[in-house]
Amino acid sequence: MGQKPGTLTVRPGAPTPRLFLMAYDEEGCDEAEYTGRYDELLTAMRTAPERKYWLDVRGYGDLPLLERIMENFNLHPLQMEDVLGDYQRAKVEVFDDNRLFLVSRMTEFTAELDIDDDQLSIFTGPNYVLSFQDDYDDCLEVLRNRLRRTNSQLRRQSIAYLAYALTDVVLDHYYPTMAAIGDYIEELEDSIFLAQRERRLLSRILQVKKSVVRFRRLVYPERDKIAEILRMPDEVMPEEMKTYYRDCYDHAIQALDLAESYRDTISSLVDLFLSDQSNRMNEVMKVLTIISSIFIPLSFVVGLYGMNFQHEDGHGHVMPMNMPELYQPWGYPALLVILALIVTGQAYYFWRKGWLSNND
Amino acid sequence: MGQKPGTLTVRPGAPTPRLFLMAYDEEGCDEAEYTGRYDELLTAMRTAPERKYWLDVRGYGDLPLLERIMENFNLHPLQMEDVLGDYQRAKVEVFDDNRLFLVSRMTEFTAELDIDDDQLSIFTGPNYVLSFQDDYDDCLEVLRNRLRRTNSQLRRQSIAYLAYALTDVVLDHYYPTMAAIGDYIEELEDSIFLAQRERRLLSRILQVKKSVVRFRRLVYPERDKIAEILRMPDEVMPEEMKTYYRDCYDHAIQALDLAESYRDTISSLVDLFLSDQSNRMNEVMKVLTIISSIFIPLSFVVGLYGMNFQHEDGHGHVMPMNMPELYQPWGYPALLVILALIVTGQAYYFWRKGWLSNND
Amino acid sequence: MGQKPGTLTVRPGAPTPRLFLMAYDEEGCDEAEYTGRYDELLTAMRTAPERKYWLDVRGYGDLPLLERIMENFNLHPLQMEDVLGDYQRAKVEVFDDNRLFLVSRMTEFTAELDIDDDQLSIFTGPNYVLSFQDDYDDCLEVLRNRLRRTNSQLRRQSIAYLAYALTDVVLDHYYPTMAAIGDYIEELEDSIFLAQRERRLLSRILQVKKSVVRFRRLVYPERDKIAEILRMPDEVMPEEMKTYYRDCYDHAIQALDLAESYRDTISSLVDLFLSDQSNRMNEVMKVLTIISSIFIPLSFVVGLYGMNFQHEDGHGHVMPMNMPELYQPWGYPALLVILALIVTGQAYYFWRKGWLSNND
Amino acid sequence: MGQKPGTLTVRPGAPTPRLFLMAYDEEGCDEAEYTGRYDELLTAMRTAPERKYWLDVRGYGDLPLLERIMENFNLHPLQMEDVLGDYQRAKVEVFDDNRLFLVSRMTEFTAELDIDDDQLSIFTGPNYVLSFQDDYDDCLEVLRNRLRRTNSQLRRQSIAYLAYALTDVVLDHYYPTMAAIGDYIEELEDSIFLAQRERRLLSRILQVKKSVVRFRRLVYPERDKIAEILRMPDEVMPEEMKTYYRDCYDHAIQALDLAESYRDTISSLVDLFLSDQSNRMNEVMKVLTIISSIFIPLSFVVGLYGMNFQHEDGHGHVMPMNMPELYQPWGYPALLVILALIVTGQAYYFWRKGWLSNND
Amino acid sequence: MGQKPGTLTVRPGAPTPRLFLMAYDEEGCDEAEYTGRYDELLTAMRTAPERKYWLDVRGYGDLPLLERIMENFNLHPLQMEDVLGDYQRAKVEVFDDNRLFLVSRMTEFTAELDIDDDQLSIFTGPNYVLSFQDDYDDCLEVLRNRLRRTNSQLRRQSIAYLAYALTDVVLDHYYPTMAAIGDYIEELEDSIFLAQRERRLLSRILQVKKSVVRFRRLVYPERDKIAEILRMPDEVMPEEMKTYYRDCYDHAIQALDLAESYRDTISSLVDLFLSDQSNRMNEVMKVLTIISSIFIPLSFVVGLYGMNFQHEDGHGHVMPMNMPELYQPWGYPALLVILALIVTGQAYYFWRKGWLSNND
Repeated sequence: MGQKPGTLTVRPGAPTPRLFLMAYDEEGCDEAEYTGRYDELLTAMRTAPERKYWLDVRGYGDLPLLERIMENFNLHPLQMEDVLGDYQRAKVEVFDDNRLFLVSRMTEFTAELDIDDDQLSIFTGPNYVLSFQDDYDDCLEVLRNRLRRTNSQLRRQSIAYLAYALTDVVLDHYYPTMAAIGDYIEELEDSIFLAQRERRLLSRILQVKKSVVRFRRLVYPERDKIAEILRMPDEVMPEEMKTYYRDCYDHAIQALDLAESYRDTISSLVDLFLSDQSNRMNEVMKVLTIISSIFIPLSFVVGLYGMNFQHEDGHGHVMPMNMPELYQPWGYPALLVILALIVTGQAYYFWRKGWLSNND
Repeated sequence: MGQKPGTLTVRPGAPTPRLFLMAYDEEGCDEAEYTGRYDELLTAMRTAPERKYWLDVRGYGDLPLLERIMENFNLHPLQMEDVLGDYQRAKVEVFDDNRLFLVSRMTEFTAELDIDDDQLSIFTGPNYVLSFQDDYDDCLEVLRNRLRRTNSQLRRQSIAYLAYALTDVVLDHYYPTMAAIGDYIEELEDSIFLAQRERRLLSRILQVKKSVVRFRRLVYPERDKIAEILRMPDEVMPEEMKTYYRDCYDHAIQALDLAESYRDTISSLVDLFLSDQSNRMNEVMKVLTIISSIFIPLSFVVGLYGMNFQHEDGHGHVMPMNMPELYQPWGYPALLVILALIVTGQAYYFWRKGWLSNND
Repeated sequence: MGQKPGTLTVRPGAPTPRLFLMAYDEEGCDEAEYTGRYDELLTAMRTAPERKYWLDVRGYGDLPLLERIMENFNLHPLQMEDVLGDYQRAKVEVFDDNRLFLVSRMTEFTAELDIDDDQLSIFTGPNYVLSFQDDYDDCLEVLRNRLRRTNSQLRRQSIAYLAYALTDVVLDHYYPTMAAIGDYIEELEDSIFLAQRERRLLSRILQVKKSVVRFRRLVYPERDKIAEILRMPDEVMPEEMKTYYRDCYDHAIQALDLAESYRDTISSLVDLFLSDQSNRMNEVMKVLTIISSIFIPLSFVVGLYGMNFQHEDGHGHVMPMNMPELYQPWGYPALLVILALIVTGQAYYFWRKGWLSNND
Repeated sequence: MGQKPGTLTVRPGAPTPRLFLMAYDEEGCDEAEYTGRYDELLTAMRTAPERKYWLDVRGYGDLPLLERIMENFNLHPLQMEDVLGDYQRAKVEVFDDNRLFLVSRMTEFTAELDIDDDQLSIFTGPNYVLSFQDDYDDCLEVLRNRLRRTNSQLRRQSIAYLAYALTDVVLDHYYPTMAAIGDYIEELEDSIFLAQRERRLLSRILQVKKSVVRFRRLVYPERDKIAEILRMPDEVMPEEMKTYYRDCYDHAIQALDLAESYRDTISSLVDLFLSDQSNRMNEVMKVLTIISSIFIPLSFVVGLYGMNFQHEDGHGHVMPMNMPELYQPWGYPALLVILALIVTGQAYYFWRKGWLSNND
Repeated sequence: MGQKPGTLTVRPGAPTPRLFLMAYDEEGCDEAEYTGRYDELLTAMRTAPERKYWLDVRGYGDLPLLERIMENFNLHPLQMEDVLGDYQRAKVEVFDDNRLFLVSRMTEFTAELDIDDDQLSIFTGPNYVLSFQDDYDDCLEVLRNRLRRTNSQLRRQSIAYLAYALTDVVLDHYYPTMAAIGDYIEELEDSIFLAQRERRLLSRILQVKKSVVRFRRLVYPERDKIAEILRMPDEVMPEEMKTYYRDCYDHAIQALDLAESYRDTISSLVDLFLSDQSNRMNEVMKVLTIISSIFIPLSFVVGLYGMNFQHEDGHGHVMPMNMPELYQPWGYPALLVILALIVTGQAYYFWRKGWLSNND
């Protein structure tokens, strides 16, 4: 902050850059790692200008090297700042007339219910694609395999197609992320009605909501990026490439649709959770009410016959006489019958109200 | 995922394709099933190029056959991928200048409160319509009957009209879906106030909400598709066809309006449900409060007269004398009267507060 | 459904069409009912082509007649389908170059808290307005009276003005509908705080909400219709007529504004209702708490002195001696004083907390 | 309703029109009331056409007079209807080429927590501004004072500037309205946590919300009006005037911003209110729970020792012998100790749970 | 209010203006404070017109001085009013053809959970930037240091770049504000589940929400301002400057994104708070229910055996005989066993329902 815009800085702890070069043409594909041998890499690219190249830089832990790359490939410092910065929305920029600078965000749904996202920055050139990522692992292996395959369709296509394929692979990777979220939501759905639900279930529901919202925010710019590509003039983006990007656009829309529908589901989950919470309170109250309503009156009745009303018999003796029912042989049994009737009556009342069943 | 875009795959378990051909002109309509005899079908179409054809492919379980169709009818792999994929939003594409690729989604409201949707993909050609669906059953029988009818208006119309009629039939089919949802919502509305309402009523309400939202999401692209058709230049979509599509557009808008109003109704149902839940708790609390408030004070009073306060009479005898009211003949009756007064007073208080009636 | 678009059907039970013709010019206005004498009506219109005509068809129960009208007045089957269908949003269409097809919806707020709406379909012609409605009663009588009046301004105006006046009368009729809703909302507002509020008050509130939302949905297309009229080229809609429609537009906006503010009010009512429901629970709980908190401790105290702790006096006599306070003459009065102090203390505590007053 | 559009009616009880004329130029300003002397007023305006005039009509209780003004100043009946009607949104209309018809709404926040709004209608002419309001009092006095001031800047400006100044004064008057609402909201904020909060506090909160929403709805058209002015061609609204209106636009936006932030605050107040309501219930329940939990077990224990278990001693005497602890001298004290331990234990439990403190 | 637009007033208590001048070119940078020596400052600027100047006015407490600056630098009174007013949204205006008037708002998140914002107003000129702020302290020191640095890039850039750098520094300063809010939100998140949570926690949550909303409202116009700059014609804003502003635009969008996600988090916090509040009530109710359900029935049982049912033995003696179980030696132990069974049964029931654990 407060630095000159375009000042390059690398986050501390970034891994040492590894340089991978795939050189391919219709006949075949050669790949090699040039880590630490950047000059050899440049030489390799220059000696066979008729081939197509994918130069993949992984790890940003060597600023001078990155600055050399920037100069050799004629990148703008502000672009490089976007590459190295810790967060850049998906976007596309045209520079040097027809070259493209594409930023995509690769997502993963982690065990902490979070969206982990990495940035893939791509620069196109006349016969190469230059990609940057700050991690050794990525989701691009499927693409490399397609290049390596004998008889690969991909190798026959233009370099613009490779840039497209990289964009498309990242987009395709949104589906497993969404599927993982979807599975987790279903799990949450089941948890709500468990008798012993987890104390922080709502926290988890809301955490997933956060992830879905975050995901949506990552994909929106992706969609806008592709929409911008579709609006580009034909000399920058030829019509036949646009057909492919149109397909990408459909995928982005569908990922957003899915995210939107997850959001709705999670809202419903929150409603369900709160209603169930209220239900549980209701159940607690019912137990209290049923037991209290039955036994408090009973206690009164037995208390009544525990009173010490007596009368003096004229001989100085105090005789319990005021409550004649106490002295009848049938008194106690009769009382027990009355108590049983009270209990039965109340039980009937509660049963009719549906409080004895569990369903509400 | 990770596959080359435009790579065709068929979902496992897709049924074997059945091929139906309806050949028609003003005079009449011949229909035949060519399942397993694709070449004969092609021959049939070629021998009478002056007729109009509706080739209906149902079931995707034979990829090589589908690829042959793709080549014969000059379809783009990406289009075919949209046909075979498991989800493609309604859309329209113009290709080969004036041919149309139309995707519609057919809906059904299932007993599981879900929206079941199938895809209908249509390609138009100079004298044919080619339709794909992955199911033997569909909602297009009404249209076939219109073609079969003696004196059919439909047979006199252009092939573009057939494509329109297919789109229209799918749109018309949204109304029974919505009607089924509407009926179900009314049923839910009645369930809320039942004494013994179902334990998972809210789940069901929210499930229907999900369906309505899903339906809306299916119909929005349908509306956009038709709006796009209405904006097409006259050489692609002649003005007289647009009159018909304008009618479709109105129907789509009205389906969306209905979905919107269902959403509102369901929101209200959720409010009602939660308020009623709170009401039920209230009722439980009232029973507890009324019974406790009446009997706890009574218990205190009878407990009072169960105490053993006594005094020594000077002769070493302990005499109960401190509580003179205990020794009066009127003591016990008087107490009963007092208790009755307490009960009456409280009952009056609760009655005035409206707690004895059921209405809140 | 599944029918050819443009196939006319009439809802079962539609009343027999009644045909009313008002023929007018600056000098005067002749009106007659031609029910069952459609040919005479046509003759009447043809014999005096210099006059202006309002042909008002009420009731759709005679399809062949309606089809004859359709042909005589050169209407499109799809337009006629819109006239006869059970629901068509307000809209405007230009046809035959400068003729207009206008659909308006007339509303009424019923005793069932519902919006009752009927459709008024209008076709303009060179010297006539043709209106259709499926009901004998309508809200257009005010307009007829204006035509009948000696010295009527309306009779001097063009036929386009009559179409405008019909649109305007329907719009004007929205205000009594809204006023009825407004009155009802105020009634609901008062009901919320009644001691004995109705059991299904919330249902009613939400029912009114539904009506307001429905009303809004009816008026939105009305506004859009007028906006479309205002954007029409001058040869279709002359500038001087637009001045009048601009006034209509303001009215539609204000009706929508009012509906919007009703929606807000109803949202507030729901909040108030729920808060009051919670309040009532609170009150119930307070009664329970106050009575229990006072009498449960008292019961304990009197229970304490109802215990049978005794001791043997050495002569085989069991003497109650362990609880000396029981044998003091001041024992019982002292206890009563203590109980009174407990009650007073708690009453003071509850009073300070504000639980004894009714206001929360 | 049902009247010819453009028919003028005046609300019953409108005050008699008072006519004020301010005639000014760079040198000075003459003002006079011409109530009842309209012809003199006209004469005055005609005799010095080089001066600028502000004719201010207050009160609509004389329809013929208003109709004469309408004719003399060449106003359209529909415009006059907007002036006299009971509600017209803020708007601007251009008529007679370059004349403006401006409607503004003046607001006030009343003691009934309502927004009181009056309409100010302004017509511009070559050398005059004609303003209408249905009330003798207004918020324009500040402007009159600026005209009266010696060396007034305002007098040097064009007549268009006067129209602007009138619009600006009304806009400026929104701030005290908003400030009054803001103060009231702060008062409400404090009321929520009062121990003895008012019974209808929520009603009041929601009433203020209604006012804020209403205010917003008044100001939105005001903003749109000014935006429309800013888009006017230079011959209608010269660029130098637009600079001033741009300032107005900023003010309108800021008033809307403020209204928006009040709405948020009120939403938060509702949340706080409901949470506090729930809190209060919680507190009630805690008191009940603490007292019941302590004394109900105690009552059981003392009840236990109130039982009459006895045994026959073989001599026909019934001796209380089954419960030996009753006959020990330490029995009673021991029991008291046990009871005290129970109370202490529970008190410790409740204290640890934080139920004895008041904070939640 | 009611003042002539463009009338300058200064808030009472504004600090005396301090005038700072930084004069720089590629070679170096001279800075001096000219407080109280405005004329010298002007002279300094005029004597070296080939250098670039940043004139920084801090404090508005001297209106005549400000008016002199306004005249010397040819500023419009309405612009000056925006500078001095207490609140002006971020905006950009072009004046005198290519000069810019830029308003930015500098934010800070205070300990009172409020957003403190100050205004930075910038005017560009051919070789100077004129900045105004009403405070001695600011967040521009980083920029000054960049100017002072030997070999400063900034000094080589055009004066337009300095204006950009000022805008950028303010934007950069949004991040610490957001970070402070983010930290605070995390703190709140932890507080919710504390056993003894603060009484006014919800107030604090809602206060932060207010700040976030406020921040968003501050940044939206900032974004719009930059978008407007990006749309400016090249003669006002050269393309190479736009590259930098595009970077600013990304930053503004990301600040808004962050604010949006904070808003979501806070909404979730409110949900969590309310659910936890309900949970706490639930827990209170469970304690009440468990204790009452266990001891109220027990009290009834012991009350039963405290009753005084007796019978006369024929000798005038009243003998307790009706309840034979009272006279069995095993009576009391048997009863204790029964009581223990009741307790065990209930405890088992509550344990199975999960009420004894703490987790819900």
